[in-house]
Amino acid sequence: MQISGASLIGRRSAAGAAGFQALDPATGAALEPVFGRASAHDVAAACALAAQAFDAYRHTSLRARAGFLDTIAERLLALGDALVERCVAESGLPRARIEGERARTVAQLRMFAQVVRAGDFLGVRIDPAQPARQPMPRVDLRVQHVALGPVAVFGASNFPLAFSVAGGDTASALAAGCPVIVKAHPAHPGTSALVGRAIQEAVDACAMPDGTFSLLFDDGYEVGAALVRDPRIQAVGFTGSRSGGTALMALAAARPQPIPVYAEMSSVNPVLLFAHALDARAEAIGRAFAAALTLGVGQFCTNPGLILGIDGPALRRFEAAAAAVLADLPAAPMLTPGIHRAYEEAVARLGAQPGVELLARGAPAGGGIRHAGRAALFATPADRFAHQPELHDEVFGPASLVVRCPDLDTMHALVERLDGQLTTALHIDDGDHAAARAFMPLLERRAGRILVNGFGTGVEVAHAMVHGGPYPATSDGRSTSVGSLAIGRFLRAVCYQDVPDALLPDALRDTNPLGVPRSIDGHRDVQA
Amino acid sequence: MQISGASLIGRRSAAGAAGFQALDPATGAALEPVFGRASAHDVAAACALAAQAFDAYRHTSLRARAGFLDTIAERLLALGDALVERCVAESGLPRARIEGERARTVAQLRMFAQVVRAGDFLGVRIDPAQPARQPMPRVDLRVQHVALGPVAVFGASNFPLAFSVAGGDTASALAAGCPVIVKAHPAHPGTSALVGRAIQEAVDACAMPDGTFSLLFDDGYEVGAALVRDPRIQAVGFTGSRSGGTALMALAAARPQPIPVYAEMSSVNPVLLFAHALDARAEAIGRAFAAALTLGVGQFCTNPGLILGIDGPALRRFEAAAAAVLADLPAAPMLTPGIHRAYEEAVARLGAQPGVELLARGAPAGGGIRHAGRAALFATPADRFAHQPELHDEVFGPASLVVRCPDLDTMHALVERLDGQLTTALHIDDGDHAAARAFMPLLERRAGRILVNGFGTGVEVAHAMVHGGPYPATSDGRSTSVGSLAIGRFLRAVCYQDVPDALLPDALRDTNPLGVPRSIDGHRDVQA
Repeated sequence: MQISGASLIGRRSAAGAAGFQALDPATGAALEPVFGRASAHDVAAACALAAQAFDAYRHTSLRARAGFLDTIAERLLALGDALVERCVAESGLPRARIEGERARTVAQLRMFAQVVRAGDFLGVRIDPAQPARQPMPRVDLRVQHVALGPVAVFGASNFPLAFSVAGGDTASALAAGCPVIVKAHPAHPGTSALVGRAIQEAVDACAMPDGTFSLLFDDGYEVGAALVRDPRIQAVGFTGSRSGGTALMALAAARPQPIPVYAEMSSVNPVLLFAHALDARAEAIGRAFAAALTLGVGQFCTNPGLILGIDGPALRRFEAAAAAVLADLPAAPMLTPGIHRAYEEAVARLGAQPGVELLARGAPAGGGIRHAGRAALFATPADRFAHQPELHDEVFGPASLVVRCPDLDTMHALVERLDGQLTTALHIDDGDHAAARAFMPLLERRAGRILVNGFGTGVEVAHAMVHGGPYPATSDGRSTSVGSLAIGRFLRAVCYQDVPDALLPDALRDTNPLGVPRSIDGHRDVQA
Repeated sequence: MQISGASLIGRRSAAGAAGFQALDPATGAALEPVFGRASAHDVAAACALAAQAFDAYRHTSLRARAGFLDTIAERLLALGDALVERCVAESGLPRARIEGERARTVAQLRMFAQVVRAGDFLGVRIDPAQPARQPMPRVDLRVQHVALGPVAVFGASNFPLAFSVAGGDTASALAAGCPVIVKAHPAHPGTSALVGRAIQEAVDACAMPDGTFSLLFDDGYEVGAALVRDPRIQAVGFTGSRSGGTALMALAAARPQPIPVYAEMSSVNPVLLFAHALDARAEAIGRAFAAALTLGVGQFCTNPGLILGIDGPALRRFEAAAAAVLADLPAAPMLTPGIHRAYEEAVARLGAQPGVELLARGAPAGGGIRHAGRAALFATPADRFAHQPELHDEVFGPASLVVRCPDLDTMHALVERLDGQLTTALHIDDGDHAAARAFMPLLERRAGRILVNGFGTGVEVAHAMVHGGPYPATSDGRSTSVGSLAIGRFLRAVCYQDVPDALLPDALRDTNPLGVPRSIDGHRDVQA
């Protein structure tokens, strides 16, 4: 499939003005073709089409909508090696990682197809009329969840497939019944164009309304801002920096009609090392940590950027083991020159803080590789960490800070001061249970996911996943952007009172023609 | 029980400075005692106590928390006639209405007790580990919903019991596991003090942590603003004016950590009259409309403030029947002098709009009654309504506007232009089904509740109720402030990955010791 460089406004293409190119971060070479920047008119046209498509799209049958999601997955796979190669070239990520990410993206689309078929997301509840109730008869009440409206999705730099054009935000919004307009991330426009065309083909193949999907290119902020300001947009999905996410939050809050923004932003993902675990296997934990830290050149939202442990010989063994792995690890290209620059600056800033000690720096990259991020491991005493807020900031990339605590109470107090987090990990053995138990209420308040004897970097796409967390991990700590619960972000409940069966949505009709799960008077309907 | 005039900071009282008194709106007389305005220090003290209480309170057993809600209901009833009399005196509402509202408030507390016992709100999902999965083993994932944190609740003027100190926001937040700090509405401080003391007693009787509940008095904006700004507050519940709600939204969005605001604000609750229904029973619908419009002197968020019908003899019969009832209806005292003044000003403004015709004005009040709202019914042609946005604004009180449409397409186009609404009602007979069906997708986009052959004014407390709707009906169209779904506003999901059974919350343990409903791998666990 030829990459055209044009935005997709529903079924048609819009060439756009001027242009920009993707860069191969490993070589710095510009990649063909030139991508046209979408105009304000293109944004408005995509929004108008999406608004026009909305009622028809959200009223497609559950089966048809699920089939559409499955078709997107098929078309994505059908792009074959061309997609993988382009994605490798644009991201600098290894082929195996991109193949894995493609598998994840396809599985995610298929999971949402299953979610749509099952119909649980409709949240159907029926409180039948009680005409004989005293002192007043009760009306008939039925509730289902409906789609919010057209959704703006911002592609992420660090997951060119799984959190981009056909990623989790798009899949969950389409599953909910919302048309989607994606603003492609300028770091991987070719990948975005290929995936966008695959979705466009799926719209055609499944006879979905024109405007169900659009894709806009821009390497600046204008298109994204115009999209969030457009009155037809009803929700926003974003994965990226805190500055980017908070800018979108401000735009959305300033609209005449404010809308929800689901921005997944920044997190240092604290890792808590407990005494028995550390005594028993400091080196193994240190090596596993170093591997997690440098996976994908550290460019994960769930990267372990902060380690807290009780200072002593075992913690130093952990540090030494991690440092040994990191020092031997050659640097690898980061996603963009800009991300690499920001990473090196942040590492320099961190290293220059008083009381911060450098434990290890990764090896330089092999010949000819540019914009390569070298791992960095630092350590600092607890009192420094407590009083220098600069040490709490996320460094996007393979850098982490070990905080040496005098005791568990100090560790508890430090975690209490942290911002909201996507994940927090505990490394424990049986002997640590009592100590760890005292941390659980605190960790529940601080993080969206608490994990034991692992690191947050693998985010399973599942029913029980939460990839969210209190601000500033996300803009909306009630939400998750991964897993089947993510569909809830794009739904709202509507109640139908005394509506005749003939006018009710299918999910609410007496005979339950869709066979969706329902609760009747607060009890699950076992016949469903 | 003596009414003390002091704020309640957890277990203790805070007299506050200077003071204000409630007014009997029917007579204008000031009612004893004087209420002290809470200080900034009182706000901070209540927030500190609530934050301190949070972990202990949210970890109370489901049974204990349900018992606490039931105890609040008992203590509320135990206040007996003293509560009813004070509430009548402060609100000017009739005794029967207040007794009904008390019954509703008690039922609401008991419903949330049931919701807590049932445990469905925890949303437990378990995806068990799959150690043999290829290419990677799957971790064990478990999710439950946890409470957000301390919640600020603003008492509403128009429901001194059901949407105030022990109203729906408080009940749902306490049910979720959130400590609550109520800012009492200054129109009914005595009612608020009595109910607050009842909750304080229930906290004691059930041995809930100090700070689970506080109550603050103020007749200005300082206390409310300080509360929303306090970093310990994690969500806000509000029922009131659009200006009040949007001011809270702006405060919450400007915090270093933005928090959700659930403000239920303004709605004209359009009523759509269809041809067959109108032909068959224009007079009956007109009389029922007049009764709904003037219920509680029109001081309901769900008051029918806008009627749309096809112009012709049947619509005129509807108008005449409604006008006849309204013209005979003596005015009744409104909640406060300020609300009465705003109502009369809004009615005068509406009547002065070009193209707006006065159809009826209610009769004056009986001797000696002050601040009495006289009903008002206006009519205007569709093209006027389309081009004068002032005609779309809510008038808080017993006033309504009939829009005479030339045809159904015009009616559809007008509804398309309306803001988000709490409710919309259709009056239809069998012959109207085809016409009504064409409106359903539009009404789903515009309103939280669609009802047939009734008016929105009765809001049943039930599992399938939605008392919410797109902005500006509420600040957050994804939420409801009435019914068991309201608990979801104060919860967020937390995932536990590979956490040993001994460290898991009870709801997530293998043996399901709480017996809560769970889904396993996306399927409902039938053994629960």
